[in-house]
Amino acid sequence: MTGGVHTAGDLAEGVPDPLRALPHRPDTSGTAGHPFAPSDQGITDDGRMRAQDLVVEETATEDAVTVDTDLPGQVHETLADYLEIRITECRDIDPAFAEAVRELARFVLGGGKRIRPAFAWWGWRAAGGAAEGRQATAMLRAASALELIQTCALMHDDLIDDSDTRRGHSTVHVRFAETHRNERWNGSARRFGTAAAVLLGDLAMSWADDMVRSSGLPGACLARAMQPWQAMRTEVLAGQYLDILGQARGDESPEAALRIDELKSASYTVQRPLQFGAELGGADAATMAALSRFGADIGVAFQLRDDLLGVFGDPDVTGKPAGDDLREGKRTLLVAEAFGRARQHGDQSSLDVLHSVLGEEDPHPSQVQQARQVLEHLGAVRAVEDRITTLTEKAMATLETTDLPEPAATRLAELAIAVTDRNA
Amino acid sequence: MTGGVHTAGDLAEGVPDPLRALPHRPDTSGTAGHPFAPSDQGITDDGRMRAQDLVVEETATEDAVTVDTDLPGQVHETLADYLEIRITECRDIDPAFAEAVRELARFVLGGGKRIRPAFAWWGWRAAGGAAEGRQATAMLRAASALELIQTCALMHDDLIDDSDTRRGHSTVHVRFAETHRNERWNGSARRFGTAAAVLLGDLAMSWADDMVRSSGLPGACLARAMQPWQAMRTEVLAGQYLDILGQARGDESPEAALRIDELKSASYTVQRPLQFGAELGGADAATMAALSRFGADIGVAFQLRDDLLGVFGDPDVTGKPAGDDLREGKRTLLVAEAFGRARQHGDQSSLDVLHSVLGEEDPHPSQVQQARQVLEHLGAVRAVEDRITTLTEKAMATLETTDLPEPAATRLAELAIAVTDRNA
Repeated sequence: MTGGVHTAGDLAEGVPDPLRALPHRPDTSGTAGHPFAPSDQGITDDGRMRAQDLVVEETATEDAVTVDTDLPGQVHETLADYLEIRITECRDIDPAFAEAVRELARFVLGGGKRIRPAFAWWGWRAAGGAAEGRQATAMLRAASALELIQTCALMHDDLIDDSDTRRGHSTVHVRFAETHRNERWNGSARRFGTAAAVLLGDLAMSWADDMVRSSGLPGACLARAMQPWQAMRTEVLAGQYLDILGQARGDESPEAALRIDELKSASYTVQRPLQFGAELGGADAATMAALSRFGADIGVAFQLRDDLLGVFGDPDVTGKPAGDDLREGKRTLLVAEAFGRARQHGDQSSLDVLHSVLGEEDPHPSQVQQARQVLEHLGAVRAVEDRITTLTEKAMATLETTDLPEPAATRLAELAIAVTDRNA
Repeated sequence: MTGGVHTAGDLAEGVPDPLRALPHRPDTSGTAGHPFAPSDQGITDDGRMRAQDLVVEETATEDAVTVDTDLPGQVHETLADYLEIRITECRDIDPAFAEAVRELARFVLGGGKRIRPAFAWWGWRAAGGAAEGRQATAMLRAASALELIQTCALMHDDLIDDSDTRRGHSTVHVRFAETHRNERWNGSARRFGTAAAVLLGDLAMSWADDMVRSSGLPGACLARAMQPWQAMRTEVLAGQYLDILGQARGDESPEAALRIDELKSASYTVQRPLQFGAELGGADAATMAALSRFGADIGVAFQLRDDLLGVFGDPDVTGKPAGDDLREGKRTLLVAEAFGRARQHGDQSSLDVLHSVLGEEDPHPSQVQQARQVLEHLGAVRAVEDRITTLTEKAMATLETTDLPEPAATRLAELAIAVTDRNA
């Protein structure tokens, strides 16, 4: 089993520094070859095991590493274990299918900051959920399942956006299309790549449900958490659709931009995972209400930071080309603010600069640089920074006035800072 | 609420005649306007209701119509009710999103033969599940959820195959691309259509799980059925991937073709739904084993019939262009048999005819006609017909030697004939 591999990843995933600084198991993926090097853990005598038979076992506490202190590493390991079992099933179906599914596993295990599992975990802990033992292990599994939804979202998003790279590697549809070309197979390589990315994303989505269901958490507990679980899966798809619709319509209203931020991040990335964990932990109504408010505020602040990094982030740190969001024509609050201000001042030249870059396939770097200057000059950057500060302060005030157990209260505050004040 | 609308649909869905002949409620969709004309059923005072709050109520028995005698109609109604609730939720998220989701609902309610729910239902009844009452209503909901998986599969399949029509209408990605063009929106219409089809398919997949979970069946009952439920969702994706891989590789082996048939149809369409229903109904081991054998045989026979119709079916009845499967380059057992026989006899001219059509974007109708003649002439059609007969006889023998309650035993036999001996 390998430790967490945490590369500078996609912006949409963020890199909370405190998470990054946590101790991980040593990364042995280089020496052990493939992360799915055979392991006999969890496999029965005949070498087969079904995910739903998975016995919930105590986490090895050899190093006194609990989930609290090594969340990304534990999530990574939990996902690796789960995917290993599912790939064994897939091998029984067909070796060529299992090979394709390995690409899914590489994607899941190859990066990602595990933000959603972190919020779910700290929601659970805030509700009084255990840090160790059977229930904690089961909860870790339920929280890790959020990464499979995220995998579906990213794979399908890359396909929709026709993106070539993700986490410094070729995207899934590009990889499969390359294989098709290299092998000189029949038909269209592009279409083969599309098919693979669509189907593997679907698989990730359906395995997310399987993973929660077979987590080992009691049925009554799972039933309570189904409201945020359902809402989250619908809302992320709503956010993605509205995002694309907004780009198509050239929607420039700040309201539309904020609504998408709310759905894609406030809900999907922060609030719903937090509620999901808190419900699983049996939170009372007051705790639920406080965490929901906190999550909504931090979620929007998270996305606003993301929007700023998408335009001003250092490509070496974010792993994405400079000004990528401008090229994609993303209708963020940052852009909406700029349009609003330029219109208000009758500043046609700024409007022209923005229009010359937004949604252009391949704008010249100097145009991107000009657009950046316009965003600063118009005060849009300042406005977004101010809003991030206001939202974060509001969220902190919510935490302070709520009676949450430690270390959950402190760790949630740290997480909030980590995801809203970051450079990648 | 509207009655069942059953148009001649896609081959992959088949049209079991006995199902078709069953009594339906009158189709009022024309007079009532949209199938989601407001209904106050299941909606609380404030006009909102969440799917997971849905109370399982007795089916209206006014007309003494039980699920047994009007399965497609009842499935249609159950799906309409469920989607209505979810669309209300989506409207709260954003009206433009709800509008997109209406396209999903139109697709789900616009056709389909409800074969998978039928096998699930009769698996339930064979296991001794009730025909009426709360449990039956809950089971109907779980069975109907299979149609949402199928919706995801078809939407994504149409996208992957770049198909323009489905059930006599434009496919989802084509419809959304048309809207984009008509509205003169920004960016690529094709890409917008792709995005919509990907996201709506994802939504259908995630709602399938939600629908089973909120069906009202007891948790212990659902837990038992999770093995076939999980396997089904993985196997259909495996089948689709292997199908595409086979086309890309130009795989001509009968074994590969049969394996895909097993996954895409034997498992996904027949055996797994049957097991799913039987597990929900609490079937004993002997019943499970018998139904599994029966399902495997009928499932393959169903797919072989599909393969024949894909080449020889009447376009007016199947709703698909003549010889569509040949044009798509599908590597069916029919084609594999023909290749094997032609090679064995050193019949190069037949091989040339087949190669000239398989996977060609736009073969001339005379070429398609020639390929059909080659398939018959080589004895491939006969071989496939013989195999259908053998499999069906085997399945019937299994039924006869198993002690199943009536009317399940009779209705399963009828279903078996219906799906293997049909013209659409």
